[in-house]
Amino acid sequence: MRLVVVGAAGRMGRMLIKAVAETEGCTLVGAIERKGSPALGQDAGLLAGTGPLGVTVTDDPLPVFARADGVLDFTAPAATTAFAALAAQARIVHVIGTTGLAEADFAKLEAAARHARIIQSGNMSLGVNLLAALVRKAAAILGEDFDIEILEMHHRMKVDAPSGTALLLGEAAAEGRKVSLKERSVRSRDGHTGARNPGDIGFATLRGGTVVGEHSVIFAGAGERLELSHRAEDRALFARGAVKAALWGFDKKPGYYTMADVLGLDRL
Amino acid sequence: MRLVVVGAAGRMGRMLIKAVAETEGCTLVGAIERKGSPALGQDAGLLAGTGPLGVTVTDDPLPVFARADGVLDFTAPAATTAFAALAAQARIVHVIGTTGLAEADFAKLEAAARHARIIQSGNMSLGVNLLAALVRKAAAILGEDFDIEILEMHHRMKVDAPSGTALLLGEAAAEGRKVSLKERSVRSRDGHTGARNPGDIGFATLRGGTVVGEHSVIFAGAGERLELSHRAEDRALFARGAVKAALWGFDKKPGYYTMADVLGLDRL
Amino acid sequence: MRLVVVGAAGRMGRMLIKAVAETEGCTLVGAIERKGSPALGQDAGLLAGTGPLGVTVTDDPLPVFARADGVLDFTAPAATTAFAALAAQARIVHVIGTTGLAEADFAKLEAAARHARIIQSGNMSLGVNLLAALVRKAAAILGEDFDIEILEMHHRMKVDAPSGTALLLGEAAAEGRKVSLKERSVRSRDGHTGARNPGDIGFATLRGGTVVGEHSVIFAGAGERLELSHRAEDRALFARGAVKAALWGFDKKPGYYTMADVLGLDRL
Amino acid sequence: MRLVVVGAAGRMGRMLIKAVAETEGCTLVGAIERKGSPALGQDAGLLAGTGPLGVTVTDDPLPVFARADGVLDFTAPAATTAFAALAAQARIVHVIGTTGLAEADFAKLEAAARHARIIQSGNMSLGVNLLAALVRKAAAILGEDFDIEILEMHHRMKVDAPSGTALLLGEAAAEGRKVSLKERSVRSRDGHTGARNPGDIGFATLRGGTVVGEHSVIFAGAGERLELSHRAEDRALFARGAVKAALWGFDKKPGYYTMADVLGLDRL
Repeated sequence: MRLVVVGAAGRMGRMLIKAVAETEGCTLVGAIERKGSPALGQDAGLLAGTGPLGVTVTDDPLPVFARADGVLDFTAPAATTAFAALAAQARIVHVIGTTGLAEADFAKLEAAARHARIIQSGNMSLGVNLLAALVRKAAAILGEDFDIEILEMHHRMKVDAPSGTALLLGEAAAEGRKVSLKERSVRSRDGHTGARNPGDIGFATLRGGTVVGEHSVIFAGAGERLELSHRAEDRALFARGAVKAALWGFDKKPGYYTMADVLGLDRL
Repeated sequence: MRLVVVGAAGRMGRMLIKAVAETEGCTLVGAIERKGSPALGQDAGLLAGTGPLGVTVTDDPLPVFARADGVLDFTAPAATTAFAALAAQARIVHVIGTTGLAEADFAKLEAAARHARIIQSGNMSLGVNLLAALVRKAAAILGEDFDIEILEMHHRMKVDAPSGTALLLGEAAAEGRKVSLKERSVRSRDGHTGARNPGDIGFATLRGGTVVGEHSVIFAGAGERLELSHRAEDRALFARGAVKAALWGFDKKPGYYTMADVLGLDRL
Repeated sequence: MRLVVVGAAGRMGRMLIKAVAETEGCTLVGAIERKGSPALGQDAGLLAGTGPLGVTVTDDPLPVFARADGVLDFTAPAATTAFAALAAQARIVHVIGTTGLAEADFAKLEAAARHARIIQSGNMSLGVNLLAALVRKAAAILGEDFDIEILEMHHRMKVDAPSGTALLLGEAAAEGRKVSLKERSVRSRDGHTGARNPGDIGFATLRGGTVVGEHSVIFAGAGERLELSHRAEDRALFARGAVKAALWGFDKKPGYYTMADVLGLDRL
Repeated sequence: MRLVVVGAAGRMGRMLIKAVAETEGCTLVGAIERKGSPALGQDAGLLAGTGPLGVTVTDDPLPVFARADGVLDFTAPAATTAFAALAAQARIVHVIGTTGLAEADFAKLEAAARHARIIQSGNMSLGVNLLAALVRKAAAILGEDFDIEILEMHHRMKVDAPSGTALLLGEAAAEGRKVSLKERSVRSRDGHTGARNPGDIGFATLRGGTVVGEHSVIFAGAGERLELSHRAEDRALFARGAVKAALWGFDKKPGYYTMADVLGLDRL
């Protein structure tokens, strides 16, 4: 499968290049950076530390998408929606790990999905997606006798809270309970908060060091607690997940897919 | 529902008496201890710290079972199989939290289940039984790329390892993978062990203090870990679960049931 | 040692009565409740579930303090400062586990400590006080290369956040670093927070179920994390710690003491 | 400081080369591999993924040690004792992270320490060495009322159990209690174990996935638990610690040192 990495010089971009180079059945055929990036003109493999791959970083996606089967994208919402339109034009796979997408962005991705195979997820790991499925089940079974709390920890450089993955897990819990996350989430506690309201879904955020990403969903009942957790040890995990998603999408019809589709978690 | 507690003077027996007294819709109608117990003749409520209940501890189960709808039993295998035969004769519910049951004991319980409603589980909490169901799912989805390890901690007085609940979780993992726990379990590691074998299910045991019971099932893959855990804070949890099981069994047909049936976890 | 419990009918008051009754060398000689309390006139032991102790709950502390060696107090700031004045008058031991004390309250306690032996702590357990000492050491050694985060979980009924114990641990960390907790603490994170500031001390709060109290202090550095944690399994722990503090205070001079003094943690 | 890496082509050797290249004030001046290694003749920087460093891997340590200030060594006991003799001859710093050293090996290292500055530790991270110091303190304060349990988890390829670091923590606990670890350690539990003996120090081992190394020391008392834990996220941590140790040793006298000396943990 011929793959393009966009945002090629960023931290995730370089991880994606490395993951493509290391995966049997994949070839890197393009690496895109924004205009003015100092990486333009460099060999993508040298950027990523894999040794030269014979692919030069460029700023023009159109001709590159035209000769590719898929694109891997962990950039930013504005870039991602633009890439999705190009992916639709080229009728290829577009794997999206970009976070911070708003309603309007999703609408554009859905439009692109009429011609592209869009595979989008807030987290590309098997573990987190399975965790979300288990959380949905547990929330459905346990009911409001069990209070739900979602805890996450990330490295000191992370600029937003709660993490996209924490919100994804919160959505899974809310779906399990058939409530709206927006209406039931409690995102900070400080000072005189009063007792916890039944049905609340609480979030707590830790930041520090170089933690890649850890998430726990706690169901706290009378005298017992169930805790479902995930630890990512290594960011390469998400890059490998994205490549896996692209390979899965190769022979699929145009449409909007998630990692739950890729990983077959619907049978859960 | 009219309930009898056997092993009434033991730690779990007294918890069961208390749980029956505190549950609406239940009445304690009998409390049984073995011949020679110093508790014989005492009021069951005074034993359990609930205040007097007007039920005297006796050593003859037969007349007591005859006027009851169910019996709660966390005793020992020999006593439990004898009580099951009496429960079958009385055609009542027999909730069994006894641990250490052997194959031959199960055969006797199954025989009794032709006339009694036997509800048996290695752990009576909602949380642990849900955990087992989630572990089964996760093991089925993840396959042998994820190593399974089961960790438990209990108080310093516990005399056996791994705990019955750890083994129950191991069985759930093995079922998910369609392997035999007996063939794949690794129950200790010390000295030069060599690398881990793919497909092994490892157990590790901690003992100390007054810990009621904590269990974790870890699925450790390349760069990520999923961890599914349960903490019991309070032994009363198991007594409440047993009473809940008895109430559930009240209108059921004779048969052999587990907490998964009581808790509706089959729909998982 | 002759002890009085104030706030005798509350959850901690009853725990304290029980702990006094169960500790060799202690006798309950008084139990105080506020005017109008339905517990007035009752036997303190029956309130606490220990069986009758021959001590009637009254609302007049003065004559009771006069014939006691110490008072155990987990009430509220206004009551506690009033009791401290009486304890000073009676020249006895006053063990204070009351939380939410303000600067003005501390000034009153210090005044009382000229004649009373005041032993005050935000947490009466050996484990938490040792944890605070270890946190102080670790913060001093590790410096700002390691980000400090403090996580706590308590039951769903708790009305304030962070817990007094979390703040006590934050103070220990700040002392180790020689900074002011007030200036460096971050008590919630939600939305676009920006990267973490070096030197911040972060707090995160979980609420749910019946959790007695769990605290973790995380030191997160480059590629490694140190985590120092405490779990209280049972509220009786704090009552036992208060009785231990009273016994320790029996032969001391008037003064203001903490659990670190009682537990000999200064030698750490 | 001019540094040599021995075992240059191994996993830790390559990490060490990278750490030297990335640390200001250090220069790689030699890279040693055993005779017959396919890495001989290659550039050490290319091996380690740093780009060429102009240092060729050779199999003759003598001339290389002669022009160096220190050597970094995470090899095997037989190689390490031979390197120590050469380091003594060259009167340089020898940082030893090799595990599995026996009594006879330590005797040889001590002999070499008359002329070399030997810095040896079972774990080169700041966090683990601080953890050991805190465990020693806590064990001394808490006494046998608190049961000590040591839990560790490592990746699936690790061939021995418990880990060297777990044993180092066990030694720290035993020292704190003034007992012999050998006499009090319990290294596996399976089947009918009986109740825990007071004073035992228990070990439990988990293996799976790609876990770099996690250790917890649990002090479990009546109603409370203190847990002191460390997580290594990244093996580069140990390489950075070794370089830090070498820099510390530069101006020291010959002698046998540990990471506690390097990190100034004696002032704890």
